[in-house]
Amino acid sequence: MNTIYLLDLLGTFIFAISGTATAADKKFDLFGATIIALVTAVGGGTIRDLLIGSTPVGWMKDLNYLAAIGLGVAVTFFFKNLLVRLRHTLFLFDAIGIGLFTILGLQKTLAAGLSPVMAVLMGTVSAVFGGVVRDILCNEVPLIFRKEIYATACMAGALLYCLLEWLGLQYHINVAATVAFIIVVRVLAVRRGWGLPVVK
Amino acid sequence: MNTIYLLDLLGTFIFAISGTATAADKKFDLFGATIIALVTAVGGGTIRDLLIGSTPVGWMKDLNYLAAIGLGVAVTFFFKNLLVRLRHTLFLFDAIGIGLFTILGLQKTLAAGLSPVMAVLMGTVSAVFGGVVRDILCNEVPLIFRKEIYATACMAGALLYCLLEWLGLQYHINVAATVAFIIVVRVLAVRRGWGLPVVK
Amino acid sequence: MNTIYLLDLLGTFIFAISGTATAADKKFDLFGATIIALVTAVGGGTIRDLLIGSTPVGWMKDLNYLAAIGLGVAVTFFFKNLLVRLRHTLFLFDAIGIGLFTILGLQKTLAAGLSPVMAVLMGTVSAVFGGVVRDILCNEVPLIFRKEIYATACMAGALLYCLLEWLGLQYHINVAATVAFIIVVRVLAVRRGWGLPVVK
Repeated sequence: MNTIYLLDLLGTFIFAISGTATAADKKFDLFGATIIALVTAVGGGTIRDLLIGSTPVGWMKDLNYLAAIGLGVAVTFFFKNLLVRLRHTLFLFDAIGIGLFTILGLQKTLAAGLSPVMAVLMGTVSAVFGGVVRDILCNEVPLIFRKEIYATACMAGALLYCLLEWLGLQYHINVAATVAFIIVVRVLAVRRGWGLPVVK
Repeated sequence: MNTIYLLDLLGTFIFAISGTATAADKKFDLFGATIIALVTAVGGGTIRDLLIGSTPVGWMKDLNYLAAIGLGVAVTFFFKNLLVRLRHTLFLFDAIGIGLFTILGLQKTLAAGLSPVMAVLMGTVSAVFGGVVRDILCNEVPLIFRKEIYATACMAGALLYCLLEWLGLQYHINVAATVAFIIVVRVLAVRRGWGLPVVK
Repeated sequence: MNTIYLLDLLGTFIFAISGTATAADKKFDLFGATIIALVTAVGGGTIRDLLIGSTPVGWMKDLNYLAAIGLGVAVTFFFKNLLVRLRHTLFLFDAIGIGLFTILGLQKTLAAGLSPVMAVLMGTVSAVFGGVVRDILCNEVPLIFRKEIYATACMAGALLYCLLEWLGLQYHINVAATVAFIIVVRVLAVRRGWGLPVVK
């Protein structure tokens, strides 16, 4: 569980970096950038917690999440050039982040007594809606509504988790396997330009 | 009650079609279109449920709502041309939908112990805020903030419902009468171009 | 406490005026303008209440808030020219409003059992997020993400409040002192063009 908690904080940190970078493109000031970083990192989980009725929302009860976000903002602010060179690493960490957020969000929704279908949906929301709120606050059309496979990777991974749990797979192995699955799908989607059909 | 439940699902289905059509204009992929359909259909009720503190929000506890939305997306995706020909029917169903959503939202708010004034407001929010969130996610100024009478029809119908209930009208007759009133106002508003004064 | 309640309603009224004015720039109709006024006035407190799990949200339980908002819309609609001449007074009242909303939001968050760090953040959210939601609904990039010191004044005031309370200052004196501090910082920020560094 400790490993999962640390990875959760790492994902939060990475999402905060991505949020700060988007805010920088918009020439936001330090306050605006921090809010965008916060929203990118915890926005998806916040929407899930509000919808399932789990309040105060998760990140408000553990200051380590705010600390991870503050660190993400500071790193982006002071080491911009380093981040540009590390962008492949950051992309990988982002994939780890969405994989983990999906499975954690799915579990929390199941624990709230909702159906597996709803848990798959809320797992995906946990992973990708931080980015949606980020784009809305930046006055952009949400990227994930038309980019290559992203939310779909989360949804497929969440379905796989439910299937493997139903088959009796041990908890930690299931988390590791489904997060790895989401990462692989995401990496392949970007490499090969996989996308969903567009509605016309 | 059974009739009301079926009409509620029908309204959800129609709103999902309208959401998918908007997403198509924006060239969203299938995931984006599904999210827009979902938000259009259940966004208003979700905001009402969150504000009055009724969680998990309604549509998460009954998978038929997700099914109605999925069906709306599929129909739009596969039978686009049919929908263009049926647009007058769809407009009428949309009017039925907002009428019904208004009254159901009003009742739920009263049942939560809030005042009739708040119930009228929340009834209107239930009916029209799905469209507002849809427009925000599509990076558009919300249509209902400047189009012909729409939310105002809901608000007038909600007021009428409260008045008729106070006068002792039987429940089902009141629902039928006020939903019909909203539909008629809405149809007349579009036919005759009724609008509210614009703030300058 | 009575004074604080009256100032809270005054702040709501002023925020409603500012919201209506923004809606007028967008040529919204009376319904759209009222929604923008409502969202500007109570949006920040609503987000705070939802996040900390205090529902039904505050303004829904006391109709005086809706009345203050309705009055703000009416005044803007009928006495537009007067408001242009009073803009310095309105700016001052806006500063009073954000100061008061910050401290009230901070107290409510502490009362919900959350940490002082979270209370400072939620106090600031209470004061400034109504404006953020207003800008989003008007399809604009939120003003406070790149204008002169605004949210930062609230945050500094909230920190000062915590410090003075920790030092044992009497409640009413602390509220008066920290609200005054926020007003002074805000006025100076505008006069001297103080801003935060921009993230690039």
